Amino acid sequence: MREEVKVWSEDLKNFVRRAFIKAGIKKEHAEEVANHLVLANLRGVDSHGVIRVEYYLQGIKDGYINRDPRISLVKDNPSIALMNGDMGLGQIVAKEATNLAIEKAIKHGIGSVCTFNLSHVGMLGYYGLLIASKKMAGIIFTNGPAMVAPWGGTEKVFGTNPICMVFPYEEKPILLDMASTVIAGMKIMMAAESGKSIPLGWALDKEGKQTTDPKKALEGALLPFGEYKGYGLMLMVELYTAILCNSKLSYEILLTPYTQGGFYVQALNIESLRSFNDYLKDTMRLVKRIRSTKPWEGQERVYLPGELEDIRAEKRSKEGIPIDKNTWNSLLRVAKELDLELPKI
Amino acid sequence: MREEVKVWSEDLKNFVRRAFIKAGIKKEHAEEVANHLVLANLRGVDSHGVIRVEYYLQGIKDGYINRDPRISLVKDNPSIALMNGDMGLGQIVAKEATNLAIEKAIKHGIGSVCTFNLSHVGMLGYYGLLIASKKMAGIIFTNGPAMVAPWGGTEKVFGTNPICMVFPYEEKPILLDMASTVIAGMKIMMAAESGKSIPLGWALDKEGKQTTDPKKALEGALLPFGEYKGYGLMLMVELYTAILCNSKLSYEILLTPYTQGGFYVQALNIESLRSFNDYLKDTMRLVKRIRSTKPWEGQERVYLPGELEDIRAEKRSKEGIPIDKNTWNSLLRVAKELDLELPKI
Repeated sequence: MREEVKVWSEDLKNFVRRAFIKAGIKKEHAEEVANHLVLANLRGVDSHGVIRVEYYLQGIKDGYINRDPRISLVKDNPSIALMNGDMGLGQIVAKEATNLAIEKAIKHGIGSVCTFNLSHVGMLGYYGLLIASKKMAGIIFTNGPAMVAPWGGTEKVFGTNPICMVFPYEEKPILLDMASTVIAGMKIMMAAESGKSIPLGWALDKEGKQTTDPKKALEGALLPFGEYKGYGLMLMVELYTAILCNSKLSYEILLTPYTQGGFYVQALNIESLRSFNDYLKDTMRLVKRIRSTKPWEGQERVYLPGELEDIRAEKRSKEGIPIDKNTWNSLLRVAKELDLELPKI
Repeated sequence: MREEVKVWSEDLKNFVRRAFIKAGIKKEHAEEVANHLVLANLRGVDSHGVIRVEYYLQGIKDGYINRDPRISLVKDNPSIALMNGDMGLGQIVAKEATNLAIEKAIKHGIGSVCTFNLSHVGMLGYYGLLIASKKMAGIIFTNGPAMVAPWGGTEKVFGTNPICMVFPYEEKPILLDMASTVIAGMKIMMAAESGKSIPLGWALDKEGKQTTDPKKALEGALLPFGEYKGYGLMLMVELYTAILCNSKLSYEILLTPYTQGGFYVQALNIESLRSFNDYLKDTMRLVKRIRSTKPWEGQERVYLPGELEDIRAEKRSKEGIPIDKNTWNSLLRVAKELDLELPKI
């Protein structure tokens, strides 16, 4: 086959939805997971898109993921709750947690939900966008299987422990969604699968030396972004997720692309502090100032977090989503196993 | 004089306390500011220590800082409030905000306070340690006069917008307290005053080129830590502080060492989620794992955020606080003007 194919987002969504339904997932849950994964592809976050379908299905087959979870609250305070996801699909449990955080924020100004017992939650920005759509600010953390060394160390202790922060703004929120590593773990896996090398500074080999070989990086450890400061943030994410969420420490989580640790989400109701209009006016002043900053030589302009992903989503909506060979092959295997028609290319 | 002198922390505190009392600050407020600034010196955060005394006194003389502020709440929800600091000393207003956040967290699980109209708040870790002493986790942000370019830009838009996050742990909390620049702004100012050069990668000159000259850096712009990820965090801090706190955007704040933008503080009551004992046990497991990580060649071991500052504080408590020539000269000027005896050296 070609190096990549192009698929319409609606066709891709339909395929993913039908795959999860065939695997025994409720229709509305299958729909939710399909929306989530395809939005990641639209935004160019391919490491968190439909490449995960085969993995999630494996998690269901392995009995790790519960097809019909009974999500419950272990603790419930006015502004913070502890949620047991009963090993449901991460996308389903994390969305329920996000909705509860929003409800609490409406009532009390701020709401946080700490969640344990759930599978991979996907792209944190998905929950960020949900919070922003309610005119709220959000913070979202999660931890995952250990791949990252603390700053100064050579062994895997932390997951890539992503951080998402969001503020509403006109149609497109200001959305920061990033791994606390130099690079997302799945991107190293994808480089390893496609035989590409990685830049120095991303990872250590198992002897603790910097490496450009993604396979050696996977045996060794990834590095936090921003040196000791990124390490500090990564550790804070671990404390919020593994420990406050009553979940597993990153190095205790099974290393698969469908596993996750704890999920922490907070919503802050802006209107409990200021009118949304005043908020928007001030934010607009700031955004204009940022966009009008004289750029570096050779750069067109300064961007906001999430802006490049918004631009990519628009483009991919119009032109189709490029799917690389490895991902397409995995969808091919899923189609065969579940006797489904592949999306049109 | 010598390049540096050594002073006992108690003597230094007494001096600072008396200076602020002479400047018309209430006794208990003067005491609070003295404790705060000297703790910064003890921990080795000299840029936020007694070097600020002369500046704060200037802020009082300039009429920017209100000697007797009437701090009030503009909005008060169960878990979040908006506080008007009435241009009081930052250390006094921010401490009151922190105490209110703790109160709200006791009642509702989480409490946040957004604060505007206050002067320089000092070292964010001070408020972090206060939150941790109540067995709570904390997040603290503030913005300040513009010194930093967004990633991809060459002009000052943001303050050094520090981030503090804290979790309680045995006697010494896990305390991350960092500028969202490669380096704190005051350290560049101190380098400029002492005629030292700075490493490449810290700052741009006014043409937008990287520079090693701290004076050119002050005319140009500092750089965020961790490239575009640090820039994203810095922008989020700006949104939390300048905008949610109804304060000034960084580039609208008067550029002095006594000015500040908004102050955002959040406390999270761990016991509303889990027993503190369970929390401690899990945290201990994580800390042991981090400390036992095989270190880089030539490194003794891996440290926790704040640990080096704790070690320094212990050493400086026993051996005295080293005060550099510039700082000592500023204390000398304060002593002369207010007719005070200098601390013993």
